[in-house]
Amino acid sequence: MIYNQNDIENLETRFRANLINSLGGFKSIVLIGTKSLQGNENLGLFSSLFHIGANPAYCGFIVRPNEEKQNTLGNILNTGQFTINHVLPDFYKQAHQCSAKYNEGISEFEKTGLTPQYIDLIEAPFVEESNVKFACELAQKTNIELNGTTLIIGKIIKIIAPDSCILTDGFVDLEAACTITCSGLDSYHRTNKIGRLSYAKVDREIKEI
Amino acid sequence: MIYNQNDIENLETRFRANLINSLGGFKSIVLIGTKSLQGNENLGLFSSLFHIGANPAYCGFIVRPNEEKQNTLGNILNTGQFTINHVLPDFYKQAHQCSAKYNEGISEFEKTGLTPQYIDLIEAPFVEESNVKFACELAQKTNIELNGTTLIIGKIIKIIAPDSCILTDGFVDLEAACTITCSGLDSYHRTNKIGRLSYAKVDREIKEI
Repeated sequence: MIYNQNDIENLETRFRANLINSLGGFKSIVLIGTKSLQGNENLGLFSSLFHIGANPAYCGFIVRPNEEKQNTLGNILNTGQFTINHVLPDFYKQAHQCSAKYNEGISEFEKTGLTPQYIDLIEAPFVEESNVKFACELAQKTNIELNGTTLIIGKIIKIIAPDSCILTDGFVDLEAACTITCSGLDSYHRTNKIGRLSYAKVDREIKEI
Repeated sequence: MIYNQNDIENLETRFRANLINSLGGFKSIVLIGTKSLQGNENLGLFSSLFHIGANPAYCGFIVRPNEEKQNTLGNILNTGQFTINHVLPDFYKQAHQCSAKYNEGISEFEKTGLTPQYIDLIEAPFVEESNVKFACELAQKTNIELNGTTLIIGKIIKIIAPDSCILTDGFVDLEAACTITCSGLDSYHRTNKIGRLSYAKVDREIKEI
């Protein structure tokens, strides 16, 4: 099937949302934990997390102008902190439920049964059930005026991962950590490793490592 | 294992690169096809593609200031067009090889054996071996001054996907399309569906769809 620009613009809204959200391929799916200045905990589901740099360690994600995402955004802007928590098969339904439009002041932790966890001096809550998780401080907020979304860039200031999942070269075995992936707006997937490949050079054949 | 901010800053460079690149979870892995003003084809491997909006249909990705990514960036800025092509298990090694630092003017298509494909009036090459692929026109370039990277936002103007993979609600079954995912800098994975979930609402239990 080929969709041209006119076709895309004329698609039924929900069909287009499913189609366009599928095009990005398999995506990261994480729960972002924040706390309001009043002390209310919030947990939001995001599928747009991406790597920006390793040194300094930066990541970014997009906040859509939906009501339920504005609590996450507001808390980050007010407190400068957030946590990012990988999702496991054991609690993917609870994670999905965190995308519902709860009013400000309602904790998704309470509503879903996920457990807030506080580690050292980080004021935003982690998800205790997550294996791989990290804390960020707000590094930059950029408005994307094309469509009213917001790019949040975080500096990674604390990382938690099971010892057994961190290989000697720093690679985290996300399958061993039970991290899952998602596609489209609502589909969740486990993974099976095909292979790790050596660093690519122009004059050398790559091999499995 | 817990890494604090000082630990992260003091890690050995390669260890840190592997660790930080793993934290984003499973990621989209795509080949971006471009053509220079002189007509040279280029194919670059990117793992930072993310969804920005469905209407208008926008996606974004980060270009690191590495030599081999600058050809992709230059071509996009000069021609305003690029294609995004999903990766299959059949050619994941060729896709990985596209991350080697080939000089400008050297075609990764020729070096890897992947096949350039031209569809309708799109001037940038698609990857014939890909099942799900789409073309974008440059919508916005934003410099991320924190670390010298560049955010490119594309407007999706043409979509190609196998009929059999597009469900009646617009969701693309990426497993049926054999799209793969990646983690870290160099690990590739197939997926196994756990489930699709209904739209989450505050007052209704979610169910599998």
